[in-house]
Amino acid sequence: MGKKKAMVPVEKLDLSTVKYEPEVIKAPHLTGLMLKLFVRMVEAPVIGSLIMSFLKKQNKMVELLQDTVIPEAPMFKPEFPPQDAEPSVVTADEEGKLEDRVELALKYLPHYDLPSCWSGDLLPSFRYWKIRDYAHAYRSKIVTPSMVAEKIISVIEECNYHKPPTPLLISFDAEDIRKQAEASKKRFEEGNPLSILDGIFMAIKDDIDCYPHPSKGATTWMHEVRSVEKDAVCVSRVRSCGVILIGKANMHELGMGTTGNNPIYGTTRNPHAMDRYTGGSSSGPAALVASGLCSAALGTDGGGSIRIPSSLCGVVGLKTTYGRTSVEGSLCDSGTVEIIGTIASTVEDVILVYAAILGSSPEDRICLRPPPPCFPDLSSLENANTLGSLRLGKYTEWFNDVHSTDISDVCEDVLNLLSKNHGCETIEIVIPELNEMRTAHLVSIGSETMCSLNPDCVDGKGVKLTYDTRTSMALFRSFTASDYVAAQCLRRRVMHHHMEIFKKADVIVTPTTGMTAPKIPPSALKDGETDMQVTGYLMRFIIAGNLLGLPAITIPVGYDKQGLPIGLQLIGRPWGEATILRLASAIEELCAKSRKKPTSFYDILNIK
Amino acid sequence: MGKKKAMVPVEKLDLSTVKYEPEVIKAPHLTGLMLKLFVRMVEAPVIGSLIMSFLKKQNKMVELLQDTVIPEAPMFKPEFPPQDAEPSVVTADEEGKLEDRVELALKYLPHYDLPSCWSGDLLPSFRYWKIRDYAHAYRSKIVTPSMVAEKIISVIEECNYHKPPTPLLISFDAEDIRKQAEASKKRFEEGNPLSILDGIFMAIKDDIDCYPHPSKGATTWMHEVRSVEKDAVCVSRVRSCGVILIGKANMHELGMGTTGNNPIYGTTRNPHAMDRYTGGSSSGPAALVASGLCSAALGTDGGGSIRIPSSLCGVVGLKTTYGRTSVEGSLCDSGTVEIIGTIASTVEDVILVYAAILGSSPEDRICLRPPPPCFPDLSSLENANTLGSLRLGKYTEWFNDVHSTDISDVCEDVLNLLSKNHGCETIEIVIPELNEMRTAHLVSIGSETMCSLNPDCVDGKGVKLTYDTRTSMALFRSFTASDYVAAQCLRRRVMHHHMEIFKKADVIVTPTTGMTAPKIPPSALKDGETDMQVTGYLMRFIIAGNLLGLPAITIPVGYDKQGLPIGLQLIGRPWGEATILRLASAIEELCAKSRKKPTSFYDILNIK
Repeated sequence: MGKKKAMVPVEKLDLSTVKYEPEVIKAPHLTGLMLKLFVRMVEAPVIGSLIMSFLKKQNKMVELLQDTVIPEAPMFKPEFPPQDAEPSVVTADEEGKLEDRVELALKYLPHYDLPSCWSGDLLPSFRYWKIRDYAHAYRSKIVTPSMVAEKIISVIEECNYHKPPTPLLISFDAEDIRKQAEASKKRFEEGNPLSILDGIFMAIKDDIDCYPHPSKGATTWMHEVRSVEKDAVCVSRVRSCGVILIGKANMHELGMGTTGNNPIYGTTRNPHAMDRYTGGSSSGPAALVASGLCSAALGTDGGGSIRIPSSLCGVVGLKTTYGRTSVEGSLCDSGTVEIIGTIASTVEDVILVYAAILGSSPEDRICLRPPPPCFPDLSSLENANTLGSLRLGKYTEWFNDVHSTDISDVCEDVLNLLSKNHGCETIEIVIPELNEMRTAHLVSIGSETMCSLNPDCVDGKGVKLTYDTRTSMALFRSFTASDYVAAQCLRRRVMHHHMEIFKKADVIVTPTTGMTAPKIPPSALKDGETDMQVTGYLMRFIIAGNLLGLPAITIPVGYDKQGLPIGLQLIGRPWGEATILRLASAIEELCAKSRKKPTSFYDILNIK
Repeated sequence: MGKKKAMVPVEKLDLSTVKYEPEVIKAPHLTGLMLKLFVRMVEAPVIGSLIMSFLKKQNKMVELLQDTVIPEAPMFKPEFPPQDAEPSVVTADEEGKLEDRVELALKYLPHYDLPSCWSGDLLPSFRYWKIRDYAHAYRSKIVTPSMVAEKIISVIEECNYHKPPTPLLISFDAEDIRKQAEASKKRFEEGNPLSILDGIFMAIKDDIDCYPHPSKGATTWMHEVRSVEKDAVCVSRVRSCGVILIGKANMHELGMGTTGNNPIYGTTRNPHAMDRYTGGSSSGPAALVASGLCSAALGTDGGGSIRIPSSLCGVVGLKTTYGRTSVEGSLCDSGTVEIIGTIASTVEDVILVYAAILGSSPEDRICLRPPPPCFPDLSSLENANTLGSLRLGKYTEWFNDVHSTDISDVCEDVLNLLSKNHGCETIEIVIPELNEMRTAHLVSIGSETMCSLNPDCVDGKGVKLTYDTRTSMALFRSFTASDYVAAQCLRRRVMHHHMEIFKKADVIVTPTTGMTAPKIPPSALKDGETDMQVTGYLMRFIIAGNLLGLPAITIPVGYDKQGLPIGLQLIGRPWGEATILRLASAIEELCAKSRKKPTSFYDILNIK
């Protein structure tokens, strides 16, 4: 029997007494036969719940959720206090047309210069063209969308036959891409492109509906129980701007993992190191963008699923505020922690796609109404100068709690550059109850996921999921209803802590992940793996974005000694996308010189 | 293994195919030794969860919550669409003073006539004086609050020695009452009463803080783990209007039952029949009001706890809209279904107390902001005439699904009277998924209760609760986190159904309970009982008020063949208290002639 504990009411918590508590995860690393055996055991009626009870007790979850008085009322979804207007942002008309919004965001980007490598009539490689590069090339008739389409199709088709296979897309239809490209080409010929995004190639993560592709969520059966009849709201928005959708990108099954391991469709390889994970769950979207195969991708982020792979693959990933973008038409349209966001190789490309997708839909059941759409003003030096007023909150002990000091050192360097070049002050903050935040998030996302999966499991489809997923499900199933309510009480506490911090700091800065891209154990390719230590490192700094619905962005800022990308995360105030985008743009410029292009699929496949 | 089922998306449900499905409850009726044995079994580690699994399957809860696809997103708290303004209501200034609000409500009551029995200098009995009777008597110096206080104190003290004991109050302090009465008397002497409520005697249910009394929630230990340092917001509001608080009224332990059975402090007897239950959980408040010992009482209603005992004791009980009154300072301040409301013997007394308590407090964490305070305009015949525009929605098969046709017949008669005298049209409605609504409510209230009780249970206090409570807790503990989320998805469906009905009907009419006051089995007095059949009858029509947060009122409309009171329930639109109060006032007048005063404690104790 346990012993009753009690938390101090959140307003009375004395921050000077808070000590940083490193995350302690007690769970075995399992692959192959051991993993299969473990799954059999945790799925067995009595022994299974005993194992889960034991693991939850070992990880202090029972102590926190059942034995502790949490004086706060539950907060079932992110609830934000009213926010002040952000400085140096441009606000669009809430009722205005989508194209006008994108046009407005475009207008306030920095001055556009032709890439220096473009000279005369030499057709350059498409790799790492920005959206504005494509737009310029299409408008000056250097290339057509159809020419780009053929190149992309050839790379993707090659990928499927390559050893090791690099499964980027789960659903792909060359003819569909050709048709979209042809239509876009025709619009350019007629001088009527739909927007700056016309003819831009994007991939959609497999848990977001993109008609006529099925949405499998990287399972073998999801499309059998859930048919796709139209685009998700976000997808239909980019499509109406002229975007060409290349198919459904690979992912960690059902988004329930952070490595991108996928024994069913194959594990996507990191473009920077083919023997390493991309991170997940948006493995395909991040790899596609990182390798330059498409300009941007839409992913979902319920527990870092956009930010983790973006960081590990060296690209930019934006997790929007909960409720800022519509989740209607995705597999996670009922959750309290998930959003749809953008992955792209540059901040400006993220901004352009963000401008197209933002805005909730009537179908979204959110309590809070988002403020009008707004974008950072990056158009003048003056606005760059206002960065000096931003105070960056850094919790040093947490910031430094990483797998290799390369990560914290590189991130620290960026803060120094920001201070030197822009006058941004870094201030020390303390974030209490980080482990409580993690537990609350795990219980929330796990329970909400189980609620939608249960009916399929009773139908026998549960055992057709990967062993990794089944391990997570056994844990999720063991959460009680009162655990769920207790987790929501913790959500209110942690929200309070963060809102207090945002009275002093404008942005919270952390490394995006506690480790760079981990190696893929060969034994994990066939049957998957469960490695909670790796999960812990990858999710170390991620959770506030999800449990509290705060906006967050990852920007590539350098490399570790093995040459693997390191990402810096900026966590913003509620609805504060514009500020973190503005800061991210400044950071991108500061780090531009050192940024490398990965030895990508193009190179591997010898496609020029 | 079960079989997957799927619900039709709520907007596509064809009402013409909906069949009324009687509630089927499969659970044993247990008292005495069998109850004790059962509790031991359900609290045992493995066998306990097997029994609960079996019971949940028998009652189709697993089928509904785990095997069924519910296409709707969860609704964790009542969320209402915007509502039109109600006709014939008076709106008070939201920022105005409490006393002004009460004064405004008073101003729009019907013309006040002196009771006909009051003649000359004869001091009348206090029984069934209305608030305005007391107010008149105090102002015309016929009596003083101190005189009334002495009478009340003598009755309550007698009660404790009487056989059978009639335990009305759990905490009572004669000196404290005398002090409050003395202060009120002094205000009248100085010609400065605080409001129409000055010198009015009220009781507070034992789960609402009323300083300096402890809040035990009728347990033996709650006050040891939760101290009371000030009044609950609602209590402080009535106190600031001059109300005299007579103590903490008896209740079903922790509100977890509908009969009012209480083996710890004794079971409160129904003033209409001393061998019968009052109903619960607000047993004490209803009995105190019904016997005329105080003008009004504050109770909580999370599953009918105000309406059921009010109906069974023949008084008026108002359950307010979720978020309309503050729950801060009550044991249920974190729930999604509970409110604090008023019990009184007449509609006008309910209105006056409601005027004093309404308005949420900053401490209440509700998503929705209530509209400005408003009250029914009962001041003129003209307004009574606008009743004719009200359409009363009646689901006949449900309406008639009662223990004895006396109940439906008496309620039906009222509808006919309303039609004849006021032109109110009764229209036939269909409410789908009533059993789904019940399950969703049970899971919600149960899980939220367990979340707050768990830390005390780990501390060994769980076994100090009554066997009845422990049986409920064993069930509540067996709900999984995904059950809770599924229940919230059902909440969204059921909300949709009701909002559709309110497009056609202004008020939903039902009997308040499916049976009149049940007999107290002598074997249930010592150790309590669990009788889910009785619970089912008592809660049959109750749930929409709680799961959906809708306002509802019960008015005594007649008696069954045994002379036991029958209540009619009016369920209003969100924030529609004023309309149901206006209709209730008309019904009260229509039924006034037949209303009986119970053979009350006054009579039993031979106190004149």
